[in-house]
Amino acid sequence: MREMADKYHTVLVVGGEGEKCRVVAEGYGFKDVITPGDIIKTKDDTTPFRRLTDDEYKNSRFRDLKNTRIEAVFVFADSRDWAGDQQIILDCLMSVNGHLGTRSETGNEGPPVFFSHTDVVWATSHEHCRLGMGALRASLEAVYKAITGRELSTIAFGKPQLGTYHFAMRLLQQWRKDTHDINKPPRTVYFVGDTPESDVRGTNEFNDVSEAEWVSLLVKTGVFQDGATPKYQPGHTCENVLEAVKYAVEREQARSKGEIDDVDSGIDSESACLRN
Amino acid sequence: MREMADKYHTVLVVGGEGEKCRVVAEGYGFKDVITPGDIIKTKDDTTPFRRLTDDEYKNSRFRDLKNTRIEAVFVFADSRDWAGDQQIILDCLMSVNGHLGTRSETGNEGPPVFFSHTDVVWATSHEHCRLGMGALRASLEAVYKAITGRELSTIAFGKPQLGTYHFAMRLLQQWRKDTHDINKPPRTVYFVGDTPESDVRGTNEFNDVSEAEWVSLLVKTGVFQDGATPKYQPGHTCENVLEAVKYAVEREQARSKGEIDDVDSGIDSESACLRN
Repeated sequence: MREMADKYHTVLVVGGEGEKCRVVAEGYGFKDVITPGDIIKTKDDTTPFRRLTDDEYKNSRFRDLKNTRIEAVFVFADSRDWAGDQQIILDCLMSVNGHLGTRSETGNEGPPVFFSHTDVVWATSHEHCRLGMGALRASLEAVYKAITGRELSTIAFGKPQLGTYHFAMRLLQQWRKDTHDINKPPRTVYFVGDTPESDVRGTNEFNDVSEAEWVSLLVKTGVFQDGATPKYQPGHTCENVLEAVKYAVEREQARSKGEIDDVDSGIDSESACLRN
Repeated sequence: MREMADKYHTVLVVGGEGEKCRVVAEGYGFKDVITPGDIIKTKDDTTPFRRLTDDEYKNSRFRDLKNTRIEAVFVFADSRDWAGDQQIILDCLMSVNGHLGTRSETGNEGPPVFFSHTDVVWATSHEHCRLGMGALRASLEAVYKAITGRELSTIAFGKPQLGTYHFAMRLLQQWRKDTHDINKPPRTVYFVGDTPESDVRGTNEFNDVSEAEWVSLLVKTGVFQDGATPKYQPGHTCENVLEAVKYAVEREQARSKGEIDDVDSGIDSESACLRN
């Protein structure tokens, strides 16, 4: 994200409660962070059906929109106002080069839009999964197409994108060095997750390209439910996170006793367990 | 709509401020009208990011959701909460036969969804058109597809559906009878509108099948803006509504003087001007 902050100076950041996403973005190093609240405070007919609350109004910042150029849009957390946020993202997308207030004749001269993940649904206390950020992404692409007739390409980071796994690998290596004084990456990583489309898919795909072994462990306590057929096949399916950790520990113990195949038996068992 | 009220007993009605759409639906004769607010009041984890305001909570009604069967969904006005309303509509769509709380294995056993119009954008005080009900419809269809892999067929009433024009014709005939004691439909109807995709399209298509002549007059003061190429060609383009009315009056005057072709010259000029 630091590279993004070096590349894009003025960015629109969408999602989350109040000012949280602005604070996060500034923490990543972004120099000039605009929120939908800033735009609505400055021009209140931007969103016909949304009025800012007193707190939102107080925290939002007036902007000189005529002289503002949005260089990139980041959706960092779930939108609390799908209609308004999509309207403002579309105003950016359909602008000439991110200059708010302009309209491109072709509709495809706007800045890039990044989503921090693409899960369409997520598990909550509700008996059925609820709409998540991937649903907003599908919505935005459909509305853009309905208006412009064009396909919209948005960019996802996070799972199942491999960059996420590369990043986790770097973190794990650093953690091993700092806490255990072992200066090499783990040989096996167990990835515990509840969503086949992101957790299992990304882990499996990273396993295909990584020097380490990545094992996807799918739990039944979230998005994936017992009885369903997962779209992406996990290494193993477990009842819950505790069972997944037990599975990983037992597999490593069996391996160290030579009970299972070990393609890399010259190295001590050096594995990590990541939880989504 | 009266036929709909006879056909569907328990309906979910979406859109608008507060209780307005419930009142409208009850006015149409619907016997049992549920709003998204009723469902959220009864089960508040339905929409993870939406809490009802005090007023919404007071006006919304507890329902026995386990024993409620939604027979049809109507979107009567612009949604004030796209995420929550779409979540609740999807819960209906993916239910078995409208029984809330159930999930169909195939995802296509839910009730029908009706939209009262399909304009993707509409003109407001903002310099660029804002998202309207047609955008919500595109969004709902896309999110449904992202979850189920299936295409969703929603039903639109209102323009450009021909039923709307048949209804207008009946109203005009009744009005002529009541106020002018003329018991026949108008010969020519001028339809003034700002949206090529609904106003012009519907008028042109109805003109093809109606015994009356329907002339579409497109104004430049709304969704359609000067310089653009309308997707559907109007009979005439006018600066504004006043110019459109003048155009219609002058055309009728010219016709009565025999200055323009009149395929039906045996009948006195009996025309009406409808404004969208």
